[in-house]
Amino acid sequence: MSISGTGRVLLAVNAFHPQRWHDLVAAERDVILEREPGTDPSITYAVVWKQKPNLLVGLPNLKVIFSVGAGVDHIMEDPTIPTDVPVVRVVAEDLTQHMVEYVVWRVLDHHRHGRQYRENQRLRAWRDVEQRNAGDVSVGIMGFGHLGRAAARALMPLGFRINGWSRSERRMDGVNSYAGDAGLVPFLNATDILLVLLPFTQTTKGIIDYKLLKELRRRNALGGAVLINAGRGRLQKETDILRALDDGTLKEASLDVFEIEPLPKTSPLWNHPKVFVTPHAAATSDPVHLVPVMLAQMAAYERDGTLENLVDREAGY
Amino acid sequence: MSISGTGRVLLAVNAFHPQRWHDLVAAERDVILEREPGTDPSITYAVVWKQKPNLLVGLPNLKVIFSVGAGVDHIMEDPTIPTDVPVVRVVAEDLTQHMVEYVVWRVLDHHRHGRQYRENQRLRAWRDVEQRNAGDVSVGIMGFGHLGRAAARALMPLGFRINGWSRSERRMDGVNSYAGDAGLVPFLNATDILLVLLPFTQTTKGIIDYKLLKELRRRNALGGAVLINAGRGRLQKETDILRALDDGTLKEASLDVFEIEPLPKTSPLWNHPKVFVTPHAAATSDPVHLVPVMLAQMAAYERDGTLENLVDREAGY
Ligand SMILES: NC(=O)c1ccc[n+]([C@@H]2O[C@H](COP(=O)([O-])OP(=O)(O)OC[C@H]3O[C@@H](n4cnc5c(N)ncnc54)[C@H](OP(=O)(O)O)[C@@H]3O)[C@@H](O)[C@H]2O)c1
Ligand SMILES: NC(=O)c1ccc[n+]([C@@H]2O[C@H](COP(=O)([O-])OP(=O)(O)OC[C@H]3O[C@@H](n4cnc5c(N)ncnc54)[C@H](OP(=O)(O)O)[C@@H]3O)[C@@H](O)[C@H]2O)c1
Repeated sequence: MSISGTGRVLLAVNAFHPQRWHDLVAAERDVILEREPGTDPSITYAVVWKQKPNLLVGLPNLKVIFSVGAGVDHIMEDPTIPTDVPVVRVVAEDLTQHMVEYVVWRVLDHHRHGRQYRENQRLRAWRDVEQRNAGDVSVGIMGFGHLGRAAARALMPLGFRINGWSRSERRMDGVNSYAGDAGLVPFLNATDILLVLLPFTQTTKGIIDYKLLKELRRRNALGGAVLINAGRGRLQKETDILRALDDGTLKEASLDVFEIEPLPKTSPLWNHPKVFVTPHAAATSDPVHLVPVMLAQMAAYERDGTLENLVDREAGY
Repeated sequence: MSISGTGRVLLAVNAFHPQRWHDLVAAERDVILEREPGTDPSITYAVVWKQKPNLLVGLPNLKVIFSVGAGVDHIMEDPTIPTDVPVVRVVAEDLTQHMVEYVVWRVLDHHRHGRQYRENQRLRAWRDVEQRNAGDVSVGIMGFGHLGRAAARALMPLGFRINGWSRSERRMDGVNSYAGDAGLVPFLNATDILLVLLPFTQTTKGIIDYKLLKELRRRNALGGAVLINAGRGRLQKETDILRALDDGTLKEASLDVFEIEPLPKTSPLWNHPKVFVTPHAAATSDPVHLVPVMLAQMAAYERDGTLENLVDREAGY
C-alpha cells in the first residue's frame, strides 16, 4: 500500500530487536531504519524508542511520532523533537496484561511473605508466618492511569483495599481516589503497599523520597510498608529508599526501574536482602502485539485524522 | 443459649490455638476441651482437627462432626470415628481467599521467572528473561472442587488457559474440563503448570508420581512443566518429584504439603534450588472467620436439620 519515496516510516527503536520491528512494519509500510541526512521529505511517521538527538530534525512531512512504550520521557526530554508534531504513546492489551502480572506477583510476594519463607526454607525451619487478610491491606496506586487502573481491577478481586492517586481525580467503584498535591499525604497515610505507576515528568521527578516514604502507614503487626516501583527509575531517590529500608520505614521493596539503567554493578540495591530487582522487565513491548496497534493507528489517521493516546506536551505525559 | 450438661460442643483442635477456638465457640455454646471417659451423653457436636483415636467412641448423642479444615483425611483414616454420624467440612470465604492468593502467587512466580531473576540479582546481572504470554500457558487444576474452581476464577482474568480435572465432570465457562481416569492423560498432556487441589483419599493416594509428571506438556521454549501442590502431601511421591526435577521433566515446584509433616530436616526438598517450600500454610484456618460459619451450621441444623458441605463417606471427601 506504500508509495516508495513518500509516506515512509522511520523506525528508530534502540535496544528492542529492531529487525523484528522492521519485518512487522515492512509487511504493510515502506520502512527505513536510517533517514537521509539533511532534509528528508520521504518520512511521514517516526516510531521511536531512546532515539538519538536530532533524529527528527529536517523531516518536513513528519505527521505523527509513535513512542514504542507507554512512557514518553525519552521524547519529552529531547529538545530537538519538533513541538508541532503530535506524539502518540502505546496502549496495548498485551503490555497492560504483562504489567498486571508483574503487579499482582509483587504485591502477593510481599503480602504472603515470600522473602521470609525463602529464608525459613534455607534454614530448614518449618514455621508459619502470621498471615493478615488482604482485606486489611491497602495498596496505594500512585499514577492511576491506564496501567494503574488495570492493576486496581486485578487486585480488587483478591480482596485488597485500593487507593488511587492521580493529577485529576479518577473515580472507580470500590477505590478511594485522591488527587493532586492536596491529596498526596492523605493517600500515603492510608497506604500499606505503595505501587508506583507514574510517568516521569518535571513534576514527578524524584517524588519517591524519604519524606514521602515516611508518610506511609506503618502498623506494627504488619511489619512496615512496602514499595513497588514499575513506573520510572528517576521518580525515586535510591539513597532515600535504602535509608528507609535500613531504619524500618520500609519493610521491603520491589524495583523494576532505576535512576541509572542498567543498574550499576556497584549499586547496594543488588545485594540488599529486602530488595527484589528486575531489569526494567515488568512489561516489555512485544512487537508482534504492538505493531498491529500502530499500523491500525496510522490507517485511522489517514482515514479521518483520528489519533488516540495522544501525549499532552505541556503535562509531559 | 446452651443447657449445661447437654448439647455440648467437644472441641479437639490439635495444633491450632485451641484457646482462641474455645473462646469463640464459648461465646455461644457450652464447650469442653476434654470429654468424660467412658460414656459421655452430654456431647452433641464434635469439632475436630487431628483428633486422637477413640476420641469419639462412647458419645451416644453425637449428632454432627465438624472438620476444622477443608480436608477430612484425618477423620476418614480414623477407624474409631462413628460411621453413622454426618461429617461436615469447612467451606469458608476466608479460607478460600487465602488459597486463591497462594495459587495466584505461586503460578505468577513460576510464570514470571522469580527464581531466575533472584539468581540474576545475586549475580548482579541485568538480563531480561524471555517472557511468554499467559495466553500461551495452561494451568491444569487437579481437583476441580470448591478451591479448584475458585483458583480458576482468579487465574482466568490474568489470561491463563485453564484445564480442570475432577471425578465427575465440572463445567465452567472458559475452562476445558476433564473427568475421571479416562480424562487424566489428556488433561496432563494439555497442561504446563499442574496445580494440585485434590483431597487425599484411597484413590488419590500417591497419584503424583513420575509416570504422571512425564505426561505433562513440556514445550522446549517454555522450559519444562511446573508442579504446585497445595492439596495433601500424601498425594505425591517425593522421590519421584526429585527425579523429575533432576532430569528436566519438571522445571520447578512449589510444595505446601509433604508426605511427612513437618518436613523432616533431612529432606532433600529443603535445599533443592528448584523447589519452593511452605509449611502447610497455603490456607490456614482462622477461627475468627471459621467459628461463625460452624455456629451458623449448628443453628441451621437445629432449626430444620440442614447440613451443608457434607462429606461423602464412601468417596472419602
Ligand atoms: N516498567 C515497565 O516495564 C513499564 C512499562 C510500561 C509503562 N511504564 C511506566 O508506567 C507509566 C504509566 O503508564 P500509563 O499507561 O498508566 O500512563 P497514563 O495512562 O498516562 O497514566 C499516568 C497516571 O499518572 C498520573 N500523573 C501524572 N503526573 C502526575 C502528577 N504530577 N501528580 C499526580 N498524578 C500524576 C496521571 O494523572 P491523570 O489521570 O490525572 O492524568 C495518570 O493517572 C508510564 O509513563 C511509564 O513510565 C513502565
Ligand atoms: N494446603 C492447605 O493449606 C489446604 C487448605 C485447605 C484445603 N486443602 C486441600 O484442598 C483439598 C480440596 O479442597 P476443596 O474444598 O476444593 O474440596 P472439594 O470441594 O471436595 O473438591 C475436591 C475435588 O477433587 C476431586 N476429586 C476427588 N477425588 C477424585 C478422584 N479420585 N479423581 C478425580 N478427581 C477427584 C473432586 O471431584 P468431584 O468434583 O467430581 O467431586 C473435586 O473436584 C482438600 O481436600 C484439602 O486436602 C489444603
